[in-house]
Order: sequence, then structure tokens, then C-alpha cells
Amino acid sequence: MKKIEHIGIAVNDLEKSEELFSKLFGKSPYKREQVESESVITSFFKTGPNKIELLAATSEDSAIAKYLSKNKEGIHHIAFEVSDINKEIKRLKEEGFVILNEIPKKGADNKLVCFVHPKSANGVLIELCQEIK
Amino acid sequence: MKKIEHIGIAVNDLEKSEELFSKLFGKSPYKREQVESESVITSFFKTGPNKIELLAATSEDSAIAKYLSKNKEGIHHIAFEVSDINKEIKRLKEEGFVILNEIPKKGADNKLVCFVHPKSANGVLIELCQEIK
Repeated sequence: MKKIEHIGIAVNDLEKSEELFSKLFGKSPYKREQVESESVITSFFKTGPNKIELLAATSEDSAIAKYLSKNKEGIHHIAFEVSDINKEIKRLKEEGFVILNEIPKKGADNKLVCFVHPKSANGVLIELCQEIK
Repeated sequence: MKKIEHIGIAVNDLEKSEELFSKLFGKSPYKREQVESESVITSFFKTGPNKIELLAATSEDSAIAKYLSKNKEGIHHIAFEVSDINKEIKRLKEEGFVILNEIPKKGADNKLVCFVHPKSANGVLIELCQEIK
């Protein structure tokens, strides 16, 4: 794992949260991106080598909508950048982690992503992501 | 804010979680540190420019013990590195954020730290930290 690529924060109202995080960082988000497959709209901020990704649901079926129906707004997941996502998936499975999607899928920001179930990771939803070349 | 300095993860059993995160990262924590003022024992992992800090309570009065009496184990806070913590505290106060300790205190890992109340930050407990020279 090379670094924390981003932290995903689940929010109810993307515009309000963009305003809040713009105040926090003293700068605007550098992009918004809709991820159709996840039914979310995302907004990205940079802090040095890391990113903060705000996540709002665009439909009731979205994992974020389901999360926010049970939890308050807040940190949703940590994403770690990896060089070889398939190798990491194999290694983590062998170590006993529960992989939510063993075939990486296309996530936001030009990445292949997979998720590790929080029940196998101390309550933390972990994303692995690899840049698509 | 220069980068994500670390992510703090609240855990019940430090040894068990050290073992789990050692498997996740494929390496051992690089140090343990007791923070008397916070009644916590911490364990640190490096991932490139960022750190993961596991936090276990050493007394019932600890903020981590209180957190874990109401919440499951999981992500407790995000810490951002800043160059001038007093300047950032002043700026964030002016922007309407609620600062939990306006006088920075000594945290783990040779840092001056202050916390921003999650109610003013989209449910996210934010730490600012500045290296003590």
C-alpha cells in the first residue's frame, strides 16, 4: 500500500458540504464526478498527496443512501493506493480479509477499485485503488 | 493543510488490532506510544507519507473509552498536518468551525494538536497537528 489515496466522506447535501470543506481547506474542490455504477456524485479536494472525496447518493439504491439511512454523515471509507490491485486482493484474501468484490470495478477518478468488508477490518471500510493507465 | 498526517482508529484490543493491521499492511507497527494526558495507548503504522494510528483506552475516563461505549470500533478522526497551528485555529474559528481546544496541547508522536468539533464539520472529528521542532 503506497499511501492513503483518499478518505471518503458520506454527506446528505453535496453543495452544503462542498461549501463547508472549502472553508476547511481554504480552497474549492477541484472536480465533481458522477459514478453511475455506484449511484453517487463525488466532489474532490486535494491536500498534498492525499484527497478528500465527498460522496452523495443520486438514488435510493446507492450504498451511500443505505449508509446514511443507518448512520450519521461522516467518514465512510479509507482508500489506499496500490500498484497491483489483483495481487493485493489475493494477498488480503489469504490473510483472512473479506473482499467485497474480487473483480476490481471502475470507481471514481480513473481508478480500479475493490472494497474490504469492515467486519474483517476492525470496523473500517477499506478501499484498494489502482490508477488506470 | 499540508496532507493527511494520520487517521486515528479506535480499537478495543490493541494487540489484536496490531496483528490485524500488520496483515493489512504487510508490516509491523513502527512504534507504540502512551499519551498520558489522553489516557490512550497508540500504535503507529506508516503508509508512504501517511500514518495509521490505532488508539486504545487505558482508563475509563479516556475519550476513546467514551467513544467506544457509544460506537463500534472504527475510524475516530482524521488529522491534517499544518505549518502554523495557531494561525489555522484562528482561521477556522473565523470560518465558523467549533474548536475543542483553542490552546494546542501535546499529542502523540511529538505533535502539538487541536481538535475541531464534528458537529461543525459534517460529522468528522478533525485534528490539526504541527510537528514540535
